[in-house]
Amino acid sequence: MDDVFSVKYKKPPRKYANGFMFEVRVADRTGDITVKFWGPADEASVRRIYDAFRDGDVVRIKGQATTYRDVMEISVNAESGGLVRPVQSSEYSYGDFVGSSEKDPNQMMTQLNSHIEKIENPHLQRLLSSFFSDEGFVDKFKRAPASISIHANWIGGLLEHTLNVTDICDFLTKTYPKLDKDLLLAGAILHDIGKVIEYSVTTNIDESTDGMLRGHIVAGAEMITGACENIPDFPENLKLKMAHMILSHHGKPEQGSPKKPQFPEAAVVNLADDMDAQIEQYIRVKGEAQTDDQWAYSKRLGLIYLG
Amino acid sequence: MDDVFSVKYKKPPRKYANGFMFEVRVADRTGDITVKFWGPADEASVRRIYDAFRDGDVVRIKGQATTYRDVMEISVNAESGGLVRPVQSSEYSYGDFVGSSEKDPNQMMTQLNSHIEKIENPHLQRLLSSFFSDEGFVDKFKRAPASISIHANWIGGLLEHTLNVTDICDFLTKTYPKLDKDLLLAGAILHDIGKVIEYSVTTNIDESTDGMLRGHIVAGAEMITGACENIPDFPENLKLKMAHMILSHHGKPEQGSPKKPQFPEAAVVNLADDMDAQIEQYIRVKGEAQTDDQWAYSKRLGLIYLG
Amino acid sequence: MDDVFSVKYKKPPRKYANGFMFEVRVADRTGDITVKFWGPADEASVRRIYDAFRDGDVVRIKGQATTYRDVMEISVNAESGGLVRPVQSSEYSYGDFVGSSEKDPNQMMTQLNSHIEKIENPHLQRLLSSFFSDEGFVDKFKRAPASISIHANWIGGLLEHTLNVTDICDFLTKTYPKLDKDLLLAGAILHDIGKVIEYSVTTNIDESTDGMLRGHIVAGAEMITGACENIPDFPENLKLKMAHMILSHHGKPEQGSPKKPQFPEAAVVNLADDMDAQIEQYIRVKGEAQTDDQWAYSKRLGLIYLG
Amino acid sequence: MDDVFSVKYKKPPRKYANGFMFEVRVADRTGDITVKFWGPADEASVRRIYDAFRDGDVVRIKGQATTYRDVMEISVNAESGGLVRPVQSSEYSYGDFVGSSEKDPNQMMTQLNSHIEKIENPHLQRLLSSFFSDEGFVDKFKRAPASISIHANWIGGLLEHTLNVTDICDFLTKTYPKLDKDLLLAGAILHDIGKVIEYSVTTNIDESTDGMLRGHIVAGAEMITGACENIPDFPENLKLKMAHMILSHHGKPEQGSPKKPQFPEAAVVNLADDMDAQIEQYIRVKGEAQTDDQWAYSKRLGLIYLG
Amino acid sequence: MDDVFSVKYKKPPRKYANGFMFEVRVADRTGDITVKFWGPADEASVRRIYDAFRDGDVVRIKGQATTYRDVMEISVNAESGGLVRPVQSSEYSYGDFVGSSEKDPNQMMTQLNSHIEKIENPHLQRLLSSFFSDEGFVDKFKRAPASISIHANWIGGLLEHTLNVTDICDFLTKTYPKLDKDLLLAGAILHDIGKVIEYSVTTNIDESTDGMLRGHIVAGAEMITGACENIPDFPENLKLKMAHMILSHHGKPEQGSPKKPQFPEAAVVNLADDMDAQIEQYIRVKGEAQTDDQWAYSKRLGLIYLG
Amino acid sequence: MDDVFSVKYKKPPRKYANGFMFEVRVADRTGDITVKFWGPADEASVRRIYDAFRDGDVVRIKGQATTYRDVMEISVNAESGGLVRPVQSSEYSYGDFVGSSEKDPNQMMTQLNSHIEKIENPHLQRLLSSFFSDEGFVDKFKRAPASISIHANWIGGLLEHTLNVTDICDFLTKTYPKLDKDLLLAGAILHDIGKVIEYSVTTNIDESTDGMLRGHIVAGAEMITGACENIPDFPENLKLKMAHMILSHHGKPEQGSPKKPQFPEAAVVNLADDMDAQIEQYIRVKGEAQTDDQWAYSKRLGLIYLG
Repeated sequence: MDDVFSVKYKKPPRKYANGFMFEVRVADRTGDITVKFWGPADEASVRRIYDAFRDGDVVRIKGQATTYRDVMEISVNAESGGLVRPVQSSEYSYGDFVGSSEKDPNQMMTQLNSHIEKIENPHLQRLLSSFFSDEGFVDKFKRAPASISIHANWIGGLLEHTLNVTDICDFLTKTYPKLDKDLLLAGAILHDIGKVIEYSVTTNIDESTDGMLRGHIVAGAEMITGACENIPDFPENLKLKMAHMILSHHGKPEQGSPKKPQFPEAAVVNLADDMDAQIEQYIRVKGEAQTDDQWAYSKRLGLIYLG
Repeated sequence: MDDVFSVKYKKPPRKYANGFMFEVRVADRTGDITVKFWGPADEASVRRIYDAFRDGDVVRIKGQATTYRDVMEISVNAESGGLVRPVQSSEYSYGDFVGSSEKDPNQMMTQLNSHIEKIENPHLQRLLSSFFSDEGFVDKFKRAPASISIHANWIGGLLEHTLNVTDICDFLTKTYPKLDKDLLLAGAILHDIGKVIEYSVTTNIDESTDGMLRGHIVAGAEMITGACENIPDFPENLKLKMAHMILSHHGKPEQGSPKKPQFPEAAVVNLADDMDAQIEQYIRVKGEAQTDDQWAYSKRLGLIYLG
Repeated sequence: MDDVFSVKYKKPPRKYANGFMFEVRVADRTGDITVKFWGPADEASVRRIYDAFRDGDVVRIKGQATTYRDVMEISVNAESGGLVRPVQSSEYSYGDFVGSSEKDPNQMMTQLNSHIEKIENPHLQRLLSSFFSDEGFVDKFKRAPASISIHANWIGGLLEHTLNVTDICDFLTKTYPKLDKDLLLAGAILHDIGKVIEYSVTTNIDESTDGMLRGHIVAGAEMITGACENIPDFPENLKLKMAHMILSHHGKPEQGSPKKPQFPEAAVVNLADDMDAQIEQYIRVKGEAQTDDQWAYSKRLGLIYLG
Repeated sequence: MDDVFSVKYKKPPRKYANGFMFEVRVADRTGDITVKFWGPADEASVRRIYDAFRDGDVVRIKGQATTYRDVMEISVNAESGGLVRPVQSSEYSYGDFVGSSEKDPNQMMTQLNSHIEKIENPHLQRLLSSFFSDEGFVDKFKRAPASISIHANWIGGLLEHTLNVTDICDFLTKTYPKLDKDLLLAGAILHDIGKVIEYSVTTNIDESTDGMLRGHIVAGAEMITGACENIPDFPENLKLKMAHMILSHHGKPEQGSPKKPQFPEAAVVNLADDMDAQIEQYIRVKGEAQTDDQWAYSKRLGLIYLG
Repeated sequence: MDDVFSVKYKKPPRKYANGFMFEVRVADRTGDITVKFWGPADEASVRRIYDAFRDGDVVRIKGQATTYRDVMEISVNAESGGLVRPVQSSEYSYGDFVGSSEKDPNQMMTQLNSHIEKIENPHLQRLLSSFFSDEGFVDKFKRAPASISIHANWIGGLLEHTLNVTDICDFLTKTYPKLDKDLLLAGAILHDIGKVIEYSVTTNIDESTDGMLRGHIVAGAEMITGACENIPDFPENLKLKMAHMILSHHGKPEQGSPKKPQFPEAAVVNLADDMDAQIEQYIRVKGEAQTDDQWAYSKRLGLIYLG
Repeated sequence: MDDVFSVKYKKPPRKYANGFMFEVRVADRTGDITVKFWGPADEASVRRIYDAFRDGDVVRIKGQATTYRDVMEISVNAESGGLVRPVQSSEYSYGDFVGSSEKDPNQMMTQLNSHIEKIENPHLQRLLSSFFSDEGFVDKFKRAPASISIHANWIGGLLEHTLNVTDICDFLTKTYPKLDKDLLLAGAILHDIGKVIEYSVTTNIDESTDGMLRGHIVAGAEMITGACENIPDFPENLKLKMAHMILSHHGKPEQGSPKKPQFPEAAVVNLADDMDAQIEQYIRVKGEAQTDDQWAYSKRLGLIYLG
């Protein structure tokens, strides 16, 4: 095995029978794996190799695939030509580690902006502007994935998902004219903005400390309330409703939402969010299947019929 | 209390301390209630009153609201002017007992037919024709409710719900072009046809014996396979996929589906079905609330914010 | 029945067979009940009675206890001497509607302050000061209940509960010296501050709109992050850990925490919070039992042995 | 309402607006109900009425059925002829309060003994003898019900249930010859003996303090291990297996068994126990239905088809 | 590793670093495993090897057991003597891949027929005849397994299981004489006939497309209603009851039954079905254990005591 | 791989292609693993190796780590120098296989005794004496672990856990003076005594047959009732309460307690037991983490933050 990987984290060198060894957790597009580097008794030389790269770097690894305690890992033996060394950014492309949306981000952003322009409520207009007129925010929003591993886990995935959810909500206002269109669109567009904070995207997609300790739902709701409080005369009531739509968009506590949807528009955002995530997964599992069998297996969806 | 109700079922007269009594279960638009008729020692006269009406008849009841073992009921005392007697159909209108869709059934049927016409696959065309060219079926389909008590529980409710689900699915084929449009529309249009068998609509909406013992999911799937088998050269594969879409449209076993959706179009029908049912309930609970408080309570949805 | 109650909300007058009626939801210390006022055909007079009081007012009600659709309510008949009228504050005491802690709030506050003083970390010191040096906050904190109906649902209940949790955490730092004492105490003291926002206490304990739409967990976490961001040089890391302790203090998503505890001190706050709530309930159910039987029943705890 | 009831427990007299009142919890064959006695200002006279009867006594109650806080109760008004007074045992028969098995207990005991005689393992023979040669035990065993309210809740119910379970197990040894017949029969015969301790049967079936605090599963297992330890040379292994069969006969922890069945005979006792309980309930609900409708409702089984 | 396996499905050849490779999923009596064939750069030769066998064929495989991404697989290296090639049916026996019942199928069929003959209801007699007088059906019925992997997963397993369930039900009619014996026996005999459609048995036991998309419960119920509709004068009511017994025989939705049992005979079939499946598993796990330890582990049953 | 392990159990030699092989299950401090010894055709020599050691012995194993059916195991090849042979107790120390508490057992015992001395109720004093004046019991109690693998799974772990739980309960009597201190302390001290029976500690910690078939909860409760019955005049009531505290200390049936806590002291023991187990795990997972990453993973606790 001789391939390049992105470094997720590493554990410092320690002694073993024949010298010093260390562990590195690395990833490529297909997942994570642990690498064990078995070095000689010369501690300084092992430490040099260990110090030569950091989290987020890309390294070339030459070693053997083995298993330990029932989990696969890569064993790198320094004496028999094994290698763990950083690689120049010229030697790989980001696409080796993190995928990108198949759609053009600028075009998607344009479509999302056309939804934003439809909103007539001046408070909500100002709320959306506070985010989407901020170039720094828009840059991050366009890069962010929709998840680490479940759906739309690629650069641009958040934008792609947000656009789909907003399209669906926009359509539903025709079928159900009693829905408050402005509130619904604002909720759809902003429902996942916490993911800008939750995920960190370098050579791999990872969850930030903030994402782990608070999560995108709470972080997103706080971004909303913070922004509302900075807008003069923003109605208290509307602020709470916007925050509630973010907090409840996973539908129930077991799925991470501290509140269940408590008004129609909150329910619609939850349903449209789930709908896009589910359909995207079904289509992807079916599309990626490479088999002469009529069934493809997905850990989350079970067996999918290809016939 | 002096009002008309529809009879759901009755229990034969039996002796009590002062004579003979019988029980009747009746309903109006707001729900069910048990009526106890307390008659004199003259068994024949009580029996006459009991025999004067049957299940599905409309009766006028004059009595006292009381409670027994913690449940409310109506107590009818023959000696103090109480009354249970059948009422001529001229004295009430069906609308007293069962509601109707606010939308025009013929117009909705026209819209559904325009979806049917879009289907290009000749097998699926023939399958849909086998139902929707049958006037008797269409009549029942237009009258049927979407449920007994949860959502769209009114005459025309099934058609209204089916049209919404089909509209949503039709829209989704634009967002997700990889979906098989013909298969999806056919599934959406037919997903609930078992309800034509499941519910019986007279002066009240009730569940038929077939509905109770098999349910609309299994009955509907069998209607589909039966129809497919009567169409020459209908592909076996397509028949199974159509049956699967009906069987899986409640999403998971706990919700009554013997199979989870196993291909994208089955998943979409499930999601759109759930979406319409949920949104319809949220909007209705909010719309029907009569209160100066900011919250309305629904047994299924919890507290709904009206602010 | 002739008693005083606190008004929770009311529904506007509407026509009925003999005139105009309206509904009011009222409460006393034992719970809530619906009142139906049945007035004469003179709409203006009914409207006058209705307009004479507002949410949060105390009213005297003279009427009959009845049941409707299986739920108890009070029926007030204007013609037979029934009465719904506002009462001067001199005619009742708050204690008729909302209980108070058996312990002295000032003494409890002193004890809590002595815990605050023990905290050595200067950032956490400043964080706690930002709340507990603010007299307005301290006033609200001392009045707030710990819940609406489950445990310590009385004025001063939040302070009483917070002190117990902090005492327990303080003790545990002796048994488990590896715990970060400052972090733990700060978490214990602040874990429920969102309840200052969640509950509104007038003549009854109610949940505020903010409490309903966001909940004390999210509101409390946002109070913390907001306060940290206003303190110069407050470590980002420490801010996230404080926020996490608030967010995770209900232990798991099903119980309202968007995150499970992810470090020892967060786990301890969760365990101590649950411990106090449970023990308080067990002791209260047993203490309040009035029976010659050996068992008392509690909806949440089941049968409690008194022997 | 004027009827006799069995007293379950009572709460001491306390003051109310017009005098002194007390509460009694009473039962007849159909369930429990609370009685409130409203007496005059003369405390001594109320106390006399209260002291005139005790738990387990039978009382005649004359009063009004009313509801309070949504639960039905009987209101006895001393001034308008209401009555709560003990009744001589000559005025009622036990059958008014507690049912009896339709089968002859002696005949059932004979059948059970014939199973006991089939057991060849001398240790198990001695174990069974230690119970069934003890007349006092056999008397209690013949009287005990199989449950308070769910199945075979009548005098002789335990014997009837035990015999059915043993018959089924005996039959199964033919279908599955690898089962250890002696172990299985001993387990079947003894699986519920803890119910002799769990229930107390006087004029009503009640759960004893031991039943509430330990339960028949643990109490029964301890009866077995105690008996085994008193038999010389009883194999340790066999003792544990017998105890395990008792402990695991409810199948899983959620159903009260601290251990799941861990060998075939334990599984068979669990399955046969559940089978008899379920079939008995289905047949009884269907048999007891009195209705012209085709469906009978049971809280545990749902709607049962009578057609 | 050099052994014969049955082919379940295969994935077409694709390029890799040194040439072309393909994957095959194969099975023997102990389970499934993935085989990876690593061939040379000559695509045509690899394609020849790939095309030489099909699903259901038996192949000889010579290769190395390795693991990839934590799952075991067989690596076949063409250059170092690895081999994947079809095997003549003379070189193996079906018993290598699929087990057979230890009991004689003809004798079991005779026993089942003697149950059929006991049924007196002429409609049910005709229903059973419509299946068991059809030689083609009987052949399939005798070959079918009772499951793929859980219980009685061998040729003849369905017949063996059906006979056990019917024996148990027949016995129970003695203990519970109120059961409708004809209905019960018919339900027991036919409860699993959908498995004739659900499983396909060649050199391995697999689930058919119909089994995957509809399942044996729905397919079986439809076989019953179809057969009933072809019998003149078959009572509608009896047809629905028969269908219900099939649909409800897994007991609850979570276990695949769209309806819970709604009359006694349906409950009995469910209980007897579960009883045989459970006992058979317990006895088999214990019987197949090869260990000097006192415990055998089963994924479904947990640890089983052998002492 | 060349290391020493403790033998858990072994499976007798059987034939394979090249001779005779046997399997042994062994353990060290980090977990269990299966060893397969592949020997020559000379059965007697393989049997000699197999017979040379027994369960609980320590063996030296020289072999290769491999995987089979996805689980890691050690393959010992006799022909290429592989080795499985018993080791003298002088060649290893117990600490290689089973850890020990970091605290001094005698000192902990002294602390526990000081709690015992505080108990004033003479019956409970005698009950505790019956255990803690028995040197044999105390020896076992001091050696026993608190669990096999979850928390405090080391020699002395039971004592360490018991002392922590008792310390917590003792503290709580100050916060909640209504608790019955004697009852609570007695319950805390004795809550886990069944673990003396449940675990067997030799060169590894294993669960005894009694532990597997009855469990420490039932065994402990029976130890208590047995001891109470041997104490003259021990109140029946107090015996049941003590037994209940043991039985309910896991809180609910799903966690192994046949009864939920039914009085305050039982609830407190449950809460304190859970508190110590949880905190101990959090602290240990964090303390044992060896990584430059900020997160450590625990199967039971999920990701733990180290920052």
